Amino acid sequence: MRLYSVKKLFVGSPLPTAQARHERLGKVTGLAVFASDNLSSVAYATEEILRVLILAGPAALGFSIPIGLAIAVVIAIVINSYRQSVVAYPQGASDYIVAKDNLGTPAGLTAGAALLIDYTLTVAVSVSAGVAALTSAVPVLYPYRVVLAVTLVAGIALANLRGVRESGRLFAVPTYCFIGGILLMLGAGFFRYLTGAVPGAAAPAGQPEAVSSIGLFLLLRAFSSGAVALTGIEAVADGVTAFKPPEVRNARIVLLWLGAIMATLFVGVTVLASVFGIIPKEEETVVSQLVWQIFGGGVLYYYIQAVSMVILVLAANTAFADFPRLSFFMARDGFLPRQFGTRGDRLVFSNGVIILGLAAALLIVIFGGSTHALIPLYAVGVFTSFTLSQSGMVRRWFRQRPGWWWWRAGINGVGAATTGLVAAIILTSKFVAGAWIVAVLIVIFIAHFLSINRHYRRVAEQLSLEGYGGPPPIRHTVLVLVGDLHRGVVQALQYAKTLSPDTKAVFVELDPDKTWKLEEKWGKWGCGVPLVVLTSPYRSLLGPFLDYLDHLQNQGENHMVTIVLPEFIPARWWQHLLHNQTALLIKGALLFRKNVIVTDVPYHLER
Amino acid sequence: MRLYSVKKLFVGSPLPTAQARHERLGKVTGLAVFASDNLSSVAYATEEILRVLILAGPAALGFSIPIGLAIAVVIAIVINSYRQSVVAYPQGASDYIVAKDNLGTPAGLTAGAALLIDYTLTVAVSVSAGVAALTSAVPVLYPYRVVLAVTLVAGIALANLRGVRESGRLFAVPTYCFIGGILLMLGAGFFRYLTGAVPGAAAPAGQPEAVSSIGLFLLLRAFSSGAVALTGIEAVADGVTAFKPPEVRNARIVLLWLGAIMATLFVGVTVLASVFGIIPKEEETVVSQLVWQIFGGGVLYYYIQAVSMVILVLAANTAFADFPRLSFFMARDGFLPRQFGTRGDRLVFSNGVIILGLAAALLIVIFGGSTHALIPLYAVGVFTSFTLSQSGMVRRWFRQRPGWWWWRAGINGVGAATTGLVAAIILTSKFVAGAWIVAVLIVIFIAHFLSINRHYRRVAEQLSLEGYGGPPPIRHTVLVLVGDLHRGVVQALQYAKTLSPDTKAVFVELDPDKTWKLEEKWGKWGCGVPLVVLTSPYRSLLGPFLDYLDHLQNQGENHMVTIVLPEFIPARWWQHLLHNQTALLIKGALLFRKNVIVTDVPYHLER
Repeated sequence: MRLYSVKKLFVGSPLPTAQARHERLGKVTGLAVFASDNLSSVAYATEEILRVLILAGPAALGFSIPIGLAIAVVIAIVINSYRQSVVAYPQGASDYIVAKDNLGTPAGLTAGAALLIDYTLTVAVSVSAGVAALTSAVPVLYPYRVVLAVTLVAGIALANLRGVRESGRLFAVPTYCFIGGILLMLGAGFFRYLTGAVPGAAAPAGQPEAVSSIGLFLLLRAFSSGAVALTGIEAVADGVTAFKPPEVRNARIVLLWLGAIMATLFVGVTVLASVFGIIPKEEETVVSQLVWQIFGGGVLYYYIQAVSMVILVLAANTAFADFPRLSFFMARDGFLPRQFGTRGDRLVFSNGVIILGLAAALLIVIFGGSTHALIPLYAVGVFTSFTLSQSGMVRRWFRQRPGWWWWRAGINGVGAATTGLVAAIILTSKFVAGAWIVAVLIVIFIAHFLSINRHYRRVAEQLSLEGYGGPPPIRHTVLVLVGDLHRGVVQALQYAKTLSPDTKAVFVELDPDKTWKLEEKWGKWGCGVPLVVLTSPYRSLLGPFLDYLDHLQNQGENHMVTIVLPEFIPARWWQHLLHNQTALLIKGALLFRKNVIVTDVPYHLER
Repeated sequence: MRLYSVKKLFVGSPLPTAQARHERLGKVTGLAVFASDNLSSVAYATEEILRVLILAGPAALGFSIPIGLAIAVVIAIVINSYRQSVVAYPQGASDYIVAKDNLGTPAGLTAGAALLIDYTLTVAVSVSAGVAALTSAVPVLYPYRVVLAVTLVAGIALANLRGVRESGRLFAVPTYCFIGGILLMLGAGFFRYLTGAVPGAAAPAGQPEAVSSIGLFLLLRAFSSGAVALTGIEAVADGVTAFKPPEVRNARIVLLWLGAIMATLFVGVTVLASVFGIIPKEEETVVSQLVWQIFGGGVLYYYIQAVSMVILVLAANTAFADFPRLSFFMARDGFLPRQFGTRGDRLVFSNGVIILGLAAALLIVIFGGSTHALIPLYAVGVFTSFTLSQSGMVRRWFRQRPGWWWWRAGINGVGAATTGLVAAIILTSKFVAGAWIVAVLIVIFIAHFLSINRHYRRVAEQLSLEGYGGPPPIRHTVLVLVGDLHRGVVQALQYAKTLSPDTKAVFVELDPDKTWKLEEKWGKWGCGVPLVVLTSPYRSLLGPFLDYLDHLQNQGENHMVTIVLPEFIPARWWQHLLHNQTALLIKGALLFRKNVIVTDVPYHLER
């Protein structure tokens, strides 16, 4: 009861089922709700490109512009692809469902595994990047980044256990503040560049001697790192049903907006970082350096750091909606434990929220709260599920052949080929740096999904009433295990007598003196139940009792035995420590025995 | 079952009760068995005196000789005292029992608390000192001293869980090897001193300017530290019954021998350490330095270090016999949890062994495996229980007044006064250094003893059959909680029907579709049991069910309700993770409810 109060304090009172409803979103708020995950990567994607290029020397940083443009092209292709998916799946085109429907269960499970890993990384990466935005502005907090990040994850998880309303306003304000802030910075930055007021802006342009020294592999690695700019782009397609009607049309428009804004912000920041000659530092983010150079340390600097942090937290929050929802779908299909398939008191899939929070916190601790240490793991999953989902769409168009099917299949085909290529590039160029972990995890996850599914199918077969001839007729004996004779035992004997005409009391003798005393009192207090005394040369309570049970059950088939354990319940929990937990021991020993039922008969003490 | 095998591997097969017997000991082996605890302190007592004196400068070390002699006098007095106790308590004069019998329960509990703490410290101090003997000889092991000490404690505890026979031979060989080794060193040392072959032997003698600079308080602290030489001296008196007849006579003779040997070895080492100008070092014991100076690094050096280590381990082992035995007595009197009052499979008081091992290991870890960090805690308990026990003896002589009672009372009176004085000195001079911890612990322990005792008395009153009018007549209803209809449920319904003519099935509706499906199948598979459907607006299984239960039980008094939970048991333990633990939840919610009995009816899956 006390535990329940603590839960209520943090998580809130239960909500009735009828309250489960969703606010419908217009295009403007819809963009805000679904864009935060994707847009927030503006805060770190450019930096991750520069961090790879710097390995080939500062001159190589100039390659960031072509890489940024290549990623913008990929964004355009993927956006276009999902605009097709939305038409086909107006009820929400989750990559897991699209892949499973069109390419079969193995592909669906691969996409599912990739997405679960991806959502976990979204939380870990976004929160780490959010903390980096904070510690760039307030350097004294830098040593506490892991603690800060874990606390943030715990806070977001708790908010989600209470149930965050997918309130448009909650998301709209920070998202548009972020977009506005970055656009303002881009405007000011390009103005200063065009008016020639950029100090040392000549240096970073790619010089010929650098071109020869940088390898193709490093370029691909830089591209792979930047590809995190696409994470979260699928959110709109997942959430079509959240839009006001006409849902599909609105979702398609929002997708276009999202792609345009994302490409603008990302390419803008990348070009400016190159123009301003920003070099990545350990303790300050690239965006922070850039903003500082453009605005100096004024209000606008702190404004952009603050909104960056907030949008990154919102991005993490998105994963706390996506992960439990996907787990719910997979649990419903029997690929994840059933516990993920039930809503908690607050209409939230609580188990999914808790598992995601723990996994993300663990990742943050293992990788020291460093965004760029996590990046090689990120994006592998995203592009794997993109590829499977787009390939599934191609297959679907070929099968159903609606109007313009060859055109639609073509668009999704380009999407599938592009994302597949990017996935392959990421996996090879980042394999040693961490992508292998994700590859291995995906395989392990799939193996578990399959074995969980097999288990559920087997249980269902074994419990099915089809072809069941009904239970065999049973013989029923009740045994009351007594160690002493007191009020609790007398009450249990009285109860046991009502259960079956064949009731016996069993006493295991550890000390003959006690037996005599017991037998003496039995006449008056035994309630007429016959007493069986078993001897125990090894002072074991269980051994002789189990032997007796065997003996009894071997007399005939389907002999059901109910074992009644008289137990007194102390008034306070700590008093349990002062009594032998014999009942627990006996239950443990009998747990896997057939046709045996153990019943505690509690006698409640009052003080 | 598998857990049982692991236990068997480490702890051994159960032993029958009839094997509980004790080897009777002669004087020579008796000395060996009971002396190790006391004699082993020769390995560290001198060092602890020097460690305090050195704080006043090397010149102050000369005071160790008078302090050593004073402690020898205390040894003589205490030995004499216990020789009287043995006469009065031929069945074993445990301080707890002597104090409780003669001074009343509070004094007995104080002695008991002091002894329990003392035994724990015996293990921690002896093992730490044993490891110090080892690391003095093999310095590369010094950084691993905590791990080594904890491993040793675990090993000794495990050996005691198997049941170490109190084999005379096991103890005799190392004890006499130790006595012989130290005597040999004393002989060689004094020979070299008398022949003038001691380098720099002139320096350490107490010089006049030093005398004025050392305070009385430091001298008392040094004396307090050296008083650990008396720990374990009470063992002979505890174990009178282990001797061959005439037990009392033999025990008294062994006590004399023990006192003489202990005083010789301790004073000898103290004088030699002074003569050889030994200064305590962090990483090497005083005894190690002394032996090295006398014998050089030859075989004899390693021999003495080895036997020191072995006798220290034996001393720790003694506490593993004493602590569980005292816990047994105190549990029998209802001052400690009942679990300490039962012998395990191997005829050992397993719970006492485990608790002692854990507590000692914890102390070692907290105090960094350092003997001298633990010393301020040690000896407070010992002298407290000495004082109480001797005072108890004085009271006893005055009450019973046998022949020579005034003489015997006088001896015990001197013992009580001396040990009381020493206890006061230790407590005041070491209070800040750690003795306060023990004082606080003793108070806490006594409070717990009393509250445990009160609890047991209350339970006994509440369960007593005296004046009990028998249980009231009961009405009995059986409710089968069903969530679905499958083979396991059908079997449970069939079973429940046999328990009472008033059996109902209860279904909590979370989804109306499921209700219809269930009701459809109920006609064929419901076994004729009526089905009650409860609605649940908050998706809670428990809420509506508990309301229904209230409603049912409010209809009349003494309405016993048995709740049958059909539960399927997966074939493998990990598969439990894949199913909701609803049964556990329900049991938890009903644990403190009166007149409610919860019964699982298991249905065993086969794969």
